Order: sequence, then structure tokens, then C-alpha cells
Amino acid sequence: MLLLENGERCMSIEIDETHDPARESWVPSARRHAQFPIQNLPYGIFAPADAEPRPGVAIGDAILDIGALARAGLLPEPAASALGSNTLNALFGLPSAARRALRRRLSQLLTDRAHEPALATSLHEATACTLHLPVLIGDYSDFYVGIHHAMNVGRIFRPDTPLMPNYKHLPIGYHGRASSVRVSGTPVRRPLGQTAGPDNRPNFAPTRQLDYELELGIFIGEGNSLGERIELAKASQHMAGLCLLNDWSARDVQAWERLPLGPFLSKSFQTSISPWVISTEALVPFRIAPPSRPEGDPKPLPYLEDATDRAGGQYALNLEVSLLTSRMRDSALAPERISRTTSTVMYFTFAQIVAHQASNGCNLNPGDLLGTGTLSGPTREGSGSLLELSGAGTQPLRLANGETRRFLEDGDEVMFTATAEAPGRVSIGFGSCRGVVLPSH
Amino acid sequence: MLLLENGERCMSIEIDETHDPARESWVPSARRHAQFPIQNLPYGIFAPADAEPRPGVAIGDAILDIGALARAGLLPEPAASALGSNTLNALFGLPSAARRALRRRLSQLLTDRAHEPALATSLHEATACTLHLPVLIGDYSDFYVGIHHAMNVGRIFRPDTPLMPNYKHLPIGYHGRASSVRVSGTPVRRPLGQTAGPDNRPNFAPTRQLDYELELGIFIGEGNSLGERIELAKASQHMAGLCLLNDWSARDVQAWERLPLGPFLSKSFQTSISPWVISTEALVPFRIAPPSRPEGDPKPLPYLEDATDRAGGQYALNLEVSLLTSRMRDSALAPERISRTTSTVMYFTFAQIVAHQASNGCNLNPGDLLGTGTLSGPTREGSGSLLELSGAGTQPLRLANGETRRFLEDGDEVMFTATAEAPGRVSIGFGSCRGVVLPSH
Repeated sequence: MLLLENGERCMSIEIDETHDPARESWVPSARRHAQFPIQNLPYGIFAPADAEPRPGVAIGDAILDIGALARAGLLPEPAASALGSNTLNALFGLPSAARRALRRRLSQLLTDRAHEPALATSLHEATACTLHLPVLIGDYSDFYVGIHHAMNVGRIFRPDTPLMPNYKHLPIGYHGRASSVRVSGTPVRRPLGQTAGPDNRPNFAPTRQLDYELELGIFIGEGNSLGERIELAKASQHMAGLCLLNDWSARDVQAWERLPLGPFLSKSFQTSISPWVISTEALVPFRIAPPSRPEGDPKPLPYLEDATDRAGGQYALNLEVSLLTSRMRDSALAPERISRTTSTVMYFTFAQIVAHQASNGCNLNPGDLLGTGTLSGPTREGSGSLLELSGAGTQPLRLANGETRRFLEDGDEVMFTATAEAPGRVSIGFGSCRGVVLPSH
Repeated sequence: MLLLENGERCMSIEIDETHDPARESWVPSARRHAQFPIQNLPYGIFAPADAEPRPGVAIGDAILDIGALARAGLLPEPAASALGSNTLNALFGLPSAARRALRRRLSQLLTDRAHEPALATSLHEATACTLHLPVLIGDYSDFYVGIHHAMNVGRIFRPDTPLMPNYKHLPIGYHGRASSVRVSGTPVRRPLGQTAGPDNRPNFAPTRQLDYELELGIFIGEGNSLGERIELAKASQHMAGLCLLNDWSARDVQAWERLPLGPFLSKSFQTSISPWVISTEALVPFRIAPPSRPEGDPKPLPYLEDATDRAGGQYALNLEVSLLTSRMRDSALAPERISRTTSTVMYFTFAQIVAHQASNGCNLNPGDLLGTGTLSGPTREGSGSLLELSGAGTQPLRLANGETRRFLEDGDEVMFTATAEAPGRVSIGFGSCRGVVLPSH
């Protein structure tokens, strides 16, 4: 419990028994599970074969139907009443204390073997289920807080001033398209678009520079009313959790359309997210990295400065990109890892992103999605996009099977994964975010 | 009925008996009503005193409860079944033929006095009702097709190249914030935001350059699936109707945050729209202006070129902006008209805007909102924003009572109106879009 300056009490999100490394689930596959041990308990929407979508929690190789548990009276209010839906919006809209209570109860139910008989019929094999979008996304906005990505891209367009003068003062962001956000596994259709031609005569054709962007997504929790703001000190409580996000981009379309109002159709054809929402509560033990703002950089303005947020540290998440081409698939090769990076390249924290977006009184609603922007590392190998990996196409990426890539080709499948690790803690995973490129219609 | 090149039949939207100038309603106030005569029949969501919001049609000074009519079996299917809701999304999602059938039936019911007894209890005095947002807006995007506005703003930022090389080839657009769209009458709170300071050290404070932008909004009708496109020849059928739209803007915030990804918090604090949706069907007789693309300008690419759309002509809508300051209100003065312009300044048609937004396969959903961008005329007097009216603040606007304005002050109320006129036709109006500026919290 923190006491804020205005005297208000603020429940901080802290390490509790649900993070205990000694805790093990009676679900056999959950033990030492690389992604979904008992310490994770991510939320999602799933459908068993021939059944309707419903809220679930991933545990090992199984999914627990928490809608059924709520109906059976096994879960605490007010969370239980928020689970009678095929989206997680109502759950995310609860005060964060309610989500913490739900997590503690789920952890207990899945740890104490006495509950196994009552839960057995609510456990489904994950491989037999279909995963859906976890929420109905009202608004999606995308940021640009990966500072190496901003510098890499900036160098391409403005070699002399890669970073704009505003960059270190505010999390740069723009609005994206909510209607075309799709769950991992949905193929992405290569879009048509306008691109520059000779003498500024454009073409309209399938993009020749299809790319991915490796990002994390933030799901908004309780949110704010129009005209109100979210104080930075409370912003973490307004985050329900994180996911992986692929901001598919058509670079040639982007280059032609972007001035003066920013990216539009070069991004809106599809955005993919991983199906499991890793809750803010599950991620508490992994906030172990020092702040990314080096000494000597400008101090944030007061509305983006909070001692607790700064002292809380950054989330240290390991991110990877793998690629499976058609030729690799035909040769029964495994996907090849082409990039490794970390969330610590974020120049602003998740809380700063949320506080900034609401700083003008814009209302954020439960389930709104905020992307971090591409999380490239400081070296070429840590690039979060092919644009960067291939030096804007000048140095094609060479794959182990001899293929090369400037940009994505039809049949290429892109897969993102993430894990959270910390000394003395059980690692947890984000599952994956994947999508295969289909040819244009 | 048109036969498209692929042999498919396409119901064109044509003048019919609902546009007959001789037609009069038995609702007394509808006769010679400047806004809502029988030839208009705009859709909205209204709530009688102490009652729930429901679908309605404005007729003179009254509102007809069309949800009640549907329940009474007086309206045709499938429209009738789409009216059992407190939004118009389901109605807009029907094929346009279903909306035309509904319009013909409503026109008949409100013309033929024999129906008066059956309808009497479903008619409400408009002044006793509250108007709500007509739809749940999934996505809002905003365009920039007012070419004089683009040139005026371009001159401020880039005196040498006011229009970007892409401008005449595609309707420039960007995504906006759906969550903060509000119905006319909702006050707008002056937002706080980051603005540039000396030595690129920014401030965070209430905006000192609050502005309005006069736009029209397009509501999407049936829409398209992800990965499909909307052919320009069919785009009009995917438009349910138009409204007035005020894209409130904080110019100082915009100037600081806009690079490199475009406007964000400078726009997202609120967008206001008029409550009545003027249906595409009602507007058919007012498509009388020649196309705006002058001879010698680049020919649009084939996906933005359609002989029928070009031959159909542009909508000729008269637009006005009025301002009521606190001092004027205190002196019991009427609002002062400060601008007069027309929709014919649009460089791209409504249909081109819709076809372009879907050209990359992005799915548009019923009720999605697309703004045209500011519709400034060619002269200072036709400016659709204070930025332009005041020459970016260098030549303050002088009001009749001696006050001056560079940008909006607290207490200022901005009101947009629009009318459609054509020779031999009964004029129709859009109602109004208004909002008063509240001081920052």
C-alpha cells in the first residue's frame, strides 16, 4: 500500500504468493512449462471444438474455462460476474484489486490438488481449442518508444537528424486501425497500395516491401473518463496486461503516403497480436532492469516523472523473431531465428505511455490496445524489422538455407516469442504471435 | 439499375418519389421546415424525457420513434429488425436497398394523413428529447481532401511546397480517436499538452491555440471484409449518410508532436458530430456540382477513377461556421457567422475516400466514421478553421462587437450548419454541430 502525495491510498502491484517459485500446479504439463507455469496464468478467449468462445486461462498445455468456474461459484466477485462474456473487456475494466483477487484464487485452485475433481471438466487440451482475440478493441494506438528503431529509421529518411527534437520529451505515437487487428495465426494478405513511381507518377500494385515490426501491446484496464487524466503514479493500475504485437507494414506505401499526416494504409491492412494477455500482476517479478534514460538526457516533464515508476525499474523481457519461408517449409526445416532483442530498449516506460496518451483528457477504455513501437536493439542483429535487418534493402538478410530477404515474400511465416526471466524466479512466456503472408488477390 | 462491367447488377441510388418537391407531411411543423422537411428524413438516436435512447427520424420540429413503428409492424423488413437497438449500426449494415425501402415507407407514412392516428403516440417534440451519438463508432479516420485547406496549412509549414507531391494522387488520411467522438452540444474541455519552448525545452500546459475544423463526416454502411476491397463504382452504396464534424485541434500541441508520425493528442481530446445522419438517399438531388479536379491535373489511378462517379457530380452543400463568445452571450447577442464555404472544395469525392480507405483490404464496418478534412474555400472568408481565418494568428479575426480572435477562448461556442440546395428541389438541412469551450481542469 502506497500513500500518494494527495493522501489517497494506492494499492501497489507487488510480489505475492502467486509468484512463489516453489508453487507447482497439479496440472502435470504445467510443471516446468516454458510458457505457462502456475506463475503465469495469462488470460485469453478460447473455444473448445464446436463450442462458443469463452474466457480462459492457459496452464501448461491446457486451458482452464474460467467462465465455467465463475458460473460454478468458484471465483470471487466482482471478477466472477465479469466472466460471462466472450471478451475480456469487462474483466479488464475492473479495478486492478479485483484482478489481483482473481489471480490469487486461480493460483490457489490450480495449486491445491483438492480442487482437481471440481476443475477437471473445465480443463481443455489447448491443441484442441481455437484462440480468439481476447478483447473487443475500441481504439488502437501505436507508439515509437524503441529508441534504436527510431534512430535506425530516422537515419534512412533524415541522415543528419535521425531523432526529432521532440523524441526524448514525449512518447511519440499515432492512432492505428482497430478493425483489422487479428489474433495470431490469421494469415496476412499482401496489400495493394500506392507507391511512388518515376516523376512522382505513382503506381497501385501489391506492395514490394512488406515488413513486420516486433512490438509489445498494452491492454488498458479500468481507464479514464473524457476530460480526466491518468496520473503516472497510477498508470500501472490502468494496464491489464501485455501481448506480442506485429505491426505489419508496407514500406513502399508508407514512404509515399506518410507526408504530411503519418502512416495510414501502409499499416491498416492488418495488425496481429498474440492470444494470451500476460497480466501486469504476473510480470511484477520481471521489472528488474534499470531505467533506459541515460544520465544527461533531458529530465521528463513533471507529468511524465514519478519516483515510484522510475524506481520500479523496467520490465526485462526477451523477444525473438523467427522466419519460416516456403522453401524451409518444403524442406521440413524449422523456423530460423533472425532477431533477438529486449524490452529494455524502451525509452519511455509502459506507465509513461499510458499517462501520456490520457494527458490531454482523451478517454481510454478497457481493452484499448497500445503498441510500444518496434523494439530494436542497438545492433543490427537486434533489429525488430526487416527494414533494419537488411539495411533498408541494401544488405539482404542471408538465411541458413542460402535464401536471402530484403522484405517478406509470399509464403513467409513470421513468428514472435517473448519470455520473462529474473534471478530466482520461474520464467514465463508470452506464447507466440505468428502469421503467414498470402499473395495479393 | 446499372449493369456493372462484370455483369453484376448494381442498384444505383436515384431520385424517386421521396424527393418530390410537391410532397408534404401531415406533421404541421415539417412544412417549409428549413432543416427537416419530408424530403430529408435523417436518422438519429434520441431519448424522450426520462426514457431510454432509441432510433428516430427528424420530421419538422418532431422526432418519430421508428423503433416503436418497427415493433408495431409498420416498417418493412429487414430494416424493421435492425431498429431494436440504441444505435444505428445494424441499420447502416444493411444493403442500401433495405435503407431505400425504409425511406420510401417512412415518407409514405408521414405524407398520407391516414397514418396520423397510428403514428401520433410515436411523435415526440424534439425540444423535449435528448440526442445521442447515432452509432457506436468502431473506427474513425480523418482525411485531408479540402485542397484550399491543404494549401493554406502547407504554406504555413512549407512556404515553397505547400502541396506534397502525393496530394493529387490519393486522399491523404490518418487514423483518429473513436473513443472521444461526442455528439453536438457536449462541451469541449481545453486540453493540456506539450508544446515547444525555448531551446526545444517543451512546456506542458493548457493549449493556447485551440481551434475548430469544419468537416463533413461519412458513416459507413455495409462495409467490407478484411482482405477485400470496395470498388469505387460501388462505394456510394457503402455510405449510409453524412453529418457535420468538428475536428477540434490544439495547434501548438500539433506543431510539437506531429513529426514524424502525424497528429495525435492535438486532436484526440474530442471530436464533435451533429446528431442527425443525412442519408445518402436524401442527398441524391444535390449532387449537382461539376467535379473539382481541374483540366490538366493528374488523372486518378484506375482504382480511383469511375465514369459514373465522375459523371454523378459532386454534392453541393453550403457550410457555415458561427461563433458565440461569452461577451456576446452576456450581451444577449446572436452567434456571429464567421465563415461560409461549400463541400465542392473536396478534391476527391466521398466515394473515392471510401474506396481508397478500403483499397489495401482494410475492413470498414457499419457505423465507422470518415472525416473529409477541413473544407475551406479559396478565400480567407471561406476558411474552415481559425488558423486560416486569422492567418496563423497574424491577422486576428475581428468580430462585430469589437472582440478579436486568434484562437478559441474559454466560453466560446462554435456552431456548424449545413444546407443542401438545388434548383427545383426542397432544401434540406443538417441540423447543427456545436460545442462550448470549457477551461482546463
